[in-house]
Amino acid sequence: MRPRFVLFGDSITQQSFQSGGWGAALTDRYARKADVVLRGYSGYNTRWALYLLAKIFPQGSQEAPAVVTIFFGANDAAPLDGKHAMQHVPLPEYKENLSKIISHIKFLSKETLVVLITPPPVCEEALQVTGWKIFGLKPDDASVRKNETTGSYAKACIDVAKQADVPVIDLWTCMQEKPGWQRSYLSDGLHLSEDGNAVVFTKLIEILNENGFSFEAMKWDFPEHSNVNSQNPAETAW
Amino acid sequence: MRPRFVLFGDSITQQSFQSGGWGAALTDRYARKADVVLRGYSGYNTRWALYLLAKIFPQGSQEAPAVVTIFFGANDAAPLDGKHAMQHVPLPEYKENLSKIISHIKFLSKETLVVLITPPPVCEEALQVTGWKIFGLKPDDASVRKNETTGSYAKACIDVAKQADVPVIDLWTCMQEKPGWQRSYLSDGLHLSEDGNAVVFTKLIEILNENGFSFEAMKWDFPEHSNVNSQNPAETAW
Repeated sequence: MRPRFVLFGDSITQQSFQSGGWGAALTDRYARKADVVLRGYSGYNTRWALYLLAKIFPQGSQEAPAVVTIFFGANDAAPLDGKHAMQHVPLPEYKENLSKIISHIKFLSKETLVVLITPPPVCEEALQVTGWKIFGLKPDDASVRKNETTGSYAKACIDVAKQADVPVIDLWTCMQEKPGWQRSYLSDGLHLSEDGNAVVFTKLIEILNENGFSFEAMKWDFPEHSNVNSQNPAETAW
Repeated sequence: MRPRFVLFGDSITQQSFQSGGWGAALTDRYARKADVVLRGYSGYNTRWALYLLAKIFPQGSQEAPAVVTIFFGANDAAPLDGKHAMQHVPLPEYKENLSKIISHIKFLSKETLVVLITPPPVCEEALQVTGWKIFGLKPDDASVRKNETTGSYAKACIDVAKQADVPVIDLWTCMQEKPGWQRSYLSDGLHLSEDGNAVVFTKLIEILNENGFSFEAMKWDFPEHSNVNSQNPAETAW
């Protein structure tokens, strides 16, 4: 009935309905006009995401989504020599997997707006200090993520977006432009704080506005209450 | 693919994805297991809600929702002699309309858990002081809602729930048990504050837990990342 905006990604997507989250903010903004569907999978990389594609985006069974955000890379970038090596995906395969995800979605409908989002920057210090609480690591374990490595995945994500001609949010770069980004935009060195969530929301709204999906441009599913004919409700344009 | 929890109601439902909102909190809690679908219609009463029923809950086109919350009454209770008289629905008709909504949903599937929610209490003082800012009323306009009147709609809602044998959250009563509820649970005298949203969330979780819809009792749509076979992903029970 309403167009669907599907949020496909890892834990940064899965957690996007926590207080101040970008998924919740998007749902609130598009209330009465679009359905926001949460398809975030904590811990997942692009290699595993491929196995979900056919079920999350099935062929023919329902109308294709209007918008899909693809937000992977934070786990693909886990160092091969670190504690989270099982999540690691080599850079060339990461690019290939992202391309496959885009192709699958565009195959269902060329009209679907696909938006890539790069992984956010990583604060290695925060991960080393508090990571053991979150990930069960000992304080002296090697860092589970390197910011430079994540940066190369972010650049690869931008390359894929250019090649596929889809818009991309370069979180890795834009977040680091703000002094103190480590604490203001990240909650634990890896995931987003409320301010970090607000950055994703703001950037995504810009892209939606530029691509025909502004709130104003979209239709209400049913009339605003002030347009209901209260004398003869049946006469309302339901 | 995932069971759906549909939130059907007026502005208190529509706004439930604002920061701290009960809809967003529910989506976060049931991430990976259920889809929360927002069907809140600001300003709507039960009379107008009937016109949406067949489209929001169509017959046969998709699997029936697992859970539906029905949260109307705040507008039905608008006094006939006040500024919002066009939203008023007489008490007997309110009960009849609620029954019709329940019947429609239960007709689609007897398995669907229907949860009624009474309107929250109203703070007339807050509405008179700040209402003009929110509703465009002059400070000396008559109150747009009376708490006693809303209370009679809450009681009627409970009657309907008993008759239909469905669970109900008596917000009107339980919120007023806390001293200072006017400021702590309401944002403007009519809508919910973050703490008020938390009350709805907590009470709803209790009912879900009691009726077989605890998070623990429900299935994951795809494996947790720790259950992925990282050596041979294809061997994972996707």
